[in-house]
Amino acid sequence: MPENENRQWVLKSRPDGMPTEADFELIDSPMPSPEYGQVLIKSLWNSMDPYMRGRITSSPIGGVIESEAVGRVMESRLEGISAGDIVRGRIGWQEYGLLDVTSANPVNPDYGPISTSIGVLGMPGLTAYFGLLDVCEPKPGDTVVVSSASGAVGAVVGQIAKIGGCRVIGIAGSDEKVSYVVDELGFDAGINYKVENVSEALGVVAPDGVDCYFDNVGGPITEAVMEHLAMYSRTVICGRISEYNESEPSMGPRILRYVHSTRSRIQGFTVNQYPAQFEDGRAQLARWVKSGEIKYKEDIIEGFENCPKAFIGQLRGANFGKLLIKVSDE
Amino acid sequence: MPENENRQWVLKSRPDGMPTEADFELIDSPMPSPEYGQVLIKSLWNSMDPYMRGRITSSPIGGVIESEAVGRVMESRLEGISAGDIVRGRIGWQEYGLLDVTSANPVNPDYGPISTSIGVLGMPGLTAYFGLLDVCEPKPGDTVVVSSASGAVGAVVGQIAKIGGCRVIGIAGSDEKVSYVVDELGFDAGINYKVENVSEALGVVAPDGVDCYFDNVGGPITEAVMEHLAMYSRTVICGRISEYNESEPSMGPRILRYVHSTRSRIQGFTVNQYPAQFEDGRAQLARWVKSGEIKYKEDIIEGFENCPKAFIGQLRGANFGKLLIKVSDE
Repeated sequence: MPENENRQWVLKSRPDGMPTEADFELIDSPMPSPEYGQVLIKSLWNSMDPYMRGRITSSPIGGVIESEAVGRVMESRLEGISAGDIVRGRIGWQEYGLLDVTSANPVNPDYGPISTSIGVLGMPGLTAYFGLLDVCEPKPGDTVVVSSASGAVGAVVGQIAKIGGCRVIGIAGSDEKVSYVVDELGFDAGINYKVENVSEALGVVAPDGVDCYFDNVGGPITEAVMEHLAMYSRTVICGRISEYNESEPSMGPRILRYVHSTRSRIQGFTVNQYPAQFEDGRAQLARWVKSGEIKYKEDIIEGFENCPKAFIGQLRGANFGKLLIKVSDE
Repeated sequence: MPENENRQWVLKSRPDGMPTEADFELIDSPMPSPEYGQVLIKSLWNSMDPYMRGRITSSPIGGVIESEAVGRVMESRLEGISAGDIVRGRIGWQEYGLLDVTSANPVNPDYGPISTSIGVLGMPGLTAYFGLLDVCEPKPGDTVVVSSASGAVGAVVGQIAKIGGCRVIGIAGSDEKVSYVVDELGFDAGINYKVENVSEALGVVAPDGVDCYFDNVGGPITEAVMEHLAMYSRTVICGRISEYNESEPSMGPRILRYVHSTRSRIQGFTVNQYPAQFEDGRAQLARWVKSGEIKYKEDIIEGFENCPKAFIGQLRGANFGKLLIKVSDE
């Protein structure tokens, strides 16, 4: 293959606060060549996720931006994987990448479109599954609140909670997103945090308090939910998109009085704690998606050159559903 | 008996912030008379505990201040309890009170001096026992931090953690208290929060982070500990003496970033969640006290008339050890 055929987005400068497009640089690099035990992947779908903001704080200047992607094997020097296979892995923001036995994850084509392997059947779906079921421990009849409710994680959280017999309240940033989770996903109520006072709204829609809170956002929304914790409630801290751009903690009302008075539990979480259970979780999610009990929505941005713009938009809440970069058609 | 022989401290006005002595009134009331199923108790030792500040926020003006006390049965109309028995219960700030089958707790005289039934072998000791062992789940080798370390709860927390093979760091408000927990109770290190920067000090004495935090104080001390949480740490929110006088939450740095990044757990707790296990816990504490593995210190104020002064002093951190009012000698 000719050289310098692999476009890559690298970190040009470390953002202070919200990243700008100038913090990223698009470079042309040589096509990577797989060594023994490696596969060469052509990226088809690149996943955009808020947690990546945290990685950028510690990743090297000049390095390719980290992310998960799904693509096709162009060349394999790894036993069990063949050219043409579909594989998922942490390829990052580049058109081609190398994976090995520890990082190349074959995608089961029976489960659905390959983009779902980095969405509803991938890290976001598994995050919802384990964070809700293992950490929040919802019981039928519980009131479950989820922030970023229409996002890749939140939408799955709410739908699993509905399957489990819970009352589900979604918090999102537009009337359109609230309508989506209530009218299309079957949540019981929704709150548009941009126009409503979240605490007052929760007083109306969760009069008996919040048994489970799946937190994707942190900041003032989380502080409002804390005022409404039910006795013995469980909160999972899964993400804090409202705080990712802060190098130092910002100030907010002290919330532990609510945790204390309600004997509640708050627990930090990432899905990487559950590797041994990934395949079980994925199989269950796939059954629910097939049966229609879990719906998903993808927000697709065409073109690899749009990675930074899409990512920054996501940090501002501009996406609606699972945000994907369509890197290539085939 | 003659009438108006029972002195009582009642709530005269609801304190806004730190209570003052003028918020309490000493009144003379008739001697109570037990009905069928009740016992008349003469209070000997009255327990002063920071949690009472919270009760005062919602208790009625003119009502006797709530508290636990231990006393002698003067007259019994309750089967199984006789005049002369020693009984513990929520008698409140009064010289005599009535208890019944649900509220009168016979004190086992084999366990030690009767004052211990409201201290190291009572609510504070059991709070330490269950809060540490059930919520913090310490393992040998863990680093355990306890605030209000020389107090009735904190001193027991640290000593149980030492018995369990942990490294124990106590935070207290004077050099004398720090010396006590290190030199007399065997803690591994102590921090005087009034003169040291708690976060910097923890960086030195807990370089590998804090696995268990037993929180009695809330506020800035707790926020400093959060900066040092180890991966998968467990915090029990048992008290928040620094916040009890606030009607609205004060502002502090947002701490959930630390909970998230370390996958830690924070849990609210009161000992009242464990009634079925109280006697087991008490028996274990009594064994440790008898063997000398757990030491205790009582801060005794003579005279019932000093209840408000002693309580206000406690909220300011003036006591050193379990604070008791000696109501009567016999």
